[in-house]
Amino acid sequence: MRFGFRRVAQDGLARAGVIETPRGDIATPAFMPVGTAATVKAMLPESVAATGAEIVLGNTYHLMLRPGAERVADLGGLHRFMNWPRPILTDSGGFQVMSLAGLRKLDEQGVTFKSHIDGSTHHLTPERSMEIQALLGSDIVMCFDECPALPATDTAVADSMRLSMRWAARSRAAFGDRPGHALFGIMQGGVTKDLREESAAALREIGFDGYAIGGLAVGEGQDVMFEVLDYAPGFLPEDRPRYLMGVGKPDDIVGAVKRGIDMMDCVLPTRSGRTGQAWTARGMVNIKNARHAADPRPLDEGCACPACRGYSRAYLHHVFRSNEMISGMLLTWHNLQYYQDIMAGMRAAIAAGRFAAWEAAFHGLRAEGDIAPL
Amino acid sequence: MRFGFRRVAQDGLARAGVIETPRGDIATPAFMPVGTAATVKAMLPESVAATGAEIVLGNTYHLMLRPGAERVADLGGLHRFMNWPRPILTDSGGFQVMSLAGLRKLDEQGVTFKSHIDGSTHHLTPERSMEIQALLGSDIVMCFDECPALPATDTAVADSMRLSMRWAARSRAAFGDRPGHALFGIMQGGVTKDLREESAAALREIGFDGYAIGGLAVGEGQDVMFEVLDYAPGFLPEDRPRYLMGVGKPDDIVGAVKRGIDMMDCVLPTRSGRTGQAWTARGMVNIKNARHAADPRPLDEGCACPACRGYSRAYLHHVFRSNEMISGMLLTWHNLQYYQDIMAGMRAAIAAGRFAAWEAAFHGLRAEGDIAPL
Repeated sequence: MRFGFRRVAQDGLARAGVIETPRGDIATPAFMPVGTAATVKAMLPESVAATGAEIVLGNTYHLMLRPGAERVADLGGLHRFMNWPRPILTDSGGFQVMSLAGLRKLDEQGVTFKSHIDGSTHHLTPERSMEIQALLGSDIVMCFDECPALPATDTAVADSMRLSMRWAARSRAAFGDRPGHALFGIMQGGVTKDLREESAAALREIGFDGYAIGGLAVGEGQDVMFEVLDYAPGFLPEDRPRYLMGVGKPDDIVGAVKRGIDMMDCVLPTRSGRTGQAWTARGMVNIKNARHAADPRPLDEGCACPACRGYSRAYLHHVFRSNEMISGMLLTWHNLQYYQDIMAGMRAAIAAGRFAAWEAAFHGLRAEGDIAPL
Repeated sequence: MRFGFRRVAQDGLARAGVIETPRGDIATPAFMPVGTAATVKAMLPESVAATGAEIVLGNTYHLMLRPGAERVADLGGLHRFMNWPRPILTDSGGFQVMSLAGLRKLDEQGVTFKSHIDGSTHHLTPERSMEIQALLGSDIVMCFDECPALPATDTAVADSMRLSMRWAARSRAAFGDRPGHALFGIMQGGVTKDLREESAAALREIGFDGYAIGGLAVGEGQDVMFEVLDYAPGFLPEDRPRYLMGVGKPDDIVGAVKRGIDMMDCVLPTRSGRTGQAWTARGMVNIKNARHAADPRPLDEGCACPACRGYSRAYLHHVFRSNEMISGMLLTWHNLQYYQDIMAGMRAAIAAGRFAAWEAAFHGLRAEGDIAPL
C-alpha cells in the first residue's frame, strides 16, 4: 500500500482531506502531538490516540543522540519502541541542531555539532538524516534543511534557502524509492515572497509527496506569519498535503487552516500542560491562579477529556500547587483533547461549507474569556 | 449499609476475607496504594482501579495542610475531589506529624507543629483528627496516635503507648456513631511483647471496627518485625480486620499475611516507580542499569500491566534516562500491578488451602533473580 492524499472538501482556501498510509489514515487538517524522545510527554500512547490524534511527530535530533537510531532499528523501529502503531512523522534534525546543539559548524556537506546531552560530536547531512529516519521507520520523512534565525538579512535568508534546496535534492536522491513511506520537501525563504516562490519552485522541480512550510513561528509574530501564509501555500501543489511546521497556538492553527494548511505540529499543548496552562474554548486558563483554589467547576464544561469529566478546577489547582505528576498528566491530556477537538470542528465545518461561521464562533467564545470567578 | 468484615477462608494463620463498605467490597488480604495528597502519584485513579486495588489510603497530615479538610468537604469530600469512588482509608496524621512536621510540641491534649510546606502552626488532637477525617469523608478512619522513633527506652515506648491508648478512647468518643464508616484502633508498644499485649487489651476494651498494628516498619528490620508479628495479631479479635501500617516490601507483605494480617499500605511501589525501580516476581530490577539499554524483552513476561505488555526494557531504560514522565507512569503502574497480583495470588492460595506452596514458589522465583542479560 502506498502513501496518498485525497482531498474531500474545500471551503474558501481551507481544505479537508485524508492522508493514506499503510499504518492508517490521517484526517486533515491534522494536528500532530510532539513525541520528541519517543514519548508524548506525560501521556501514554493509548491516551494520545483517545484524544483523536492519528499521527505523532518524533524528533530525529533527540532520537539520534539517545537512544540512537541504530538502537531503535534493532528494537524493531520507533513504532514498536514507543508503542504507537499509527503513523509517525519525523523531522530531519536540522531545526533542532540549530536551536539545541552546541558548537555548530555548517558547510555545504552538512552540519557538525555537539550533543546537548553529553557533548559528544555528531555529523548530520541530508544523506545521514534520510538514513536515520529510515532506521526509525518513519512514515513521513522530512528533508534535511537549514533554518536561519530571524531577523536575518535578505542575503542570508536567500543563501540559507538555496542551501536547503540543494539539500532537498540530496535528500530526495538519498531517500530513494520506499513504497508506503513519504518524503516531504520544506519550503524556506523567511518572510520574503520572492524567496518563498523560488523555494517552492525548486521543491516542485524535485518533486515530493508533500510540502512543508518551514522557517515560520520563529519569533516573527502572528501578523507576519499570516502575511506569508496568505501567499506561500498557493506556491505549492494543490494535490499534496501542506504542512506548517511548529505551529502553534489555537488561533495560529485556525488561521493557518483558513489559508490552506493541512498539517501542523507544536509542543505548546504538551509543554503548557506541564506548566499549569490549559487551553480552552474560552482561551488560556492559568490553573495556578488562586481564583481556582475553591472552584468546583470543571476546567471546560464542554470538554470530554478525563481532566474535565472527573475533576474540579480546585483539584487541578491543588495538584499543580502540590507538584503532583497527575497535574501534568491531566492538563496535557486536556490540551491535546482541545487541539484535536478544534481540528475535528474545522474538518466538519469545511465539509459542511461553513468554515467562516465556525471560525467566527471560535473567535467569539475566546473573546468572552474564561468563566467568571464564583 | 454498614461496615462489615467477613472471613471466607483460613490457611494456617493466613486469612482471606471481605471488608464490606457502602462504597464497595475489599477482598483481603488487601494492599492499599498510598494517595498522600489526593493522588496516587503518577497514576490516574482509573488506572489504580485497573490494577485491582479496591481501596486507597489518604494522608490526613498532608490534606489538612493542603488543600485543607474544610476545603475538601466544601468540594464534596475526598472521593469526589480525587475522583476515586471506592473506599478510602485515612491515617490520623499522628505518624506524619512526627516524621515530617517541624517544631513539634507534644502534650496530653495533642500535638502542635509547624507545616513543612509553609511553616504555619497547626494543632492536632484526637478530636480534631476525627473531625478532619469526617470532613474528608473517609470510609475507614484511624485513631489519632503517637509513634515514637525506635530505638527508644522501654519506659518511653510504654509511656507513648499509654498516651496513644488514652487518645484511642478520645478518638472513639469523638468519632461517635457514623453508620457505614469504620474506626480502627492502633496497637502500639514497640517490639515489647508485654506492651503490645497491654495495648491490644486497652483497644479491645474500647472496641473498634478494626485493629491496626502501628509502630513497625520504622527501621527495626524484617526479623524483628516478624518476631512481633508472630504474637501481636493473636492479641487482636479474630473477627475484625487487622491492618499492618506502612508495610512493605513484597516479602514483608507475604510474611505479614502468613502471620494473620489482612490489610497493608506502603509508598514503596509508587516511590520506587518514580526512581526507576521495578518489583517483579524475580525481585527488584533497576531499570537505569546499562544492561537494559538494548534489551528487547519486557520487564516481567508474566505481568499484564501496560508497561510489560507494551514496552521493552530498552524503552523503559531510555525514558528513565531521559527523565520522561512516562517512566514514572509505567513503572508505578507495573509496581502497583505486581503488588495487587501478589495479593490476588495469596487470596486464591488461602482459599485453596495451599498458602505454603504459594509462598514457597514466591520465594523460589525471587531466589532465582532477574533473567540473565542477553
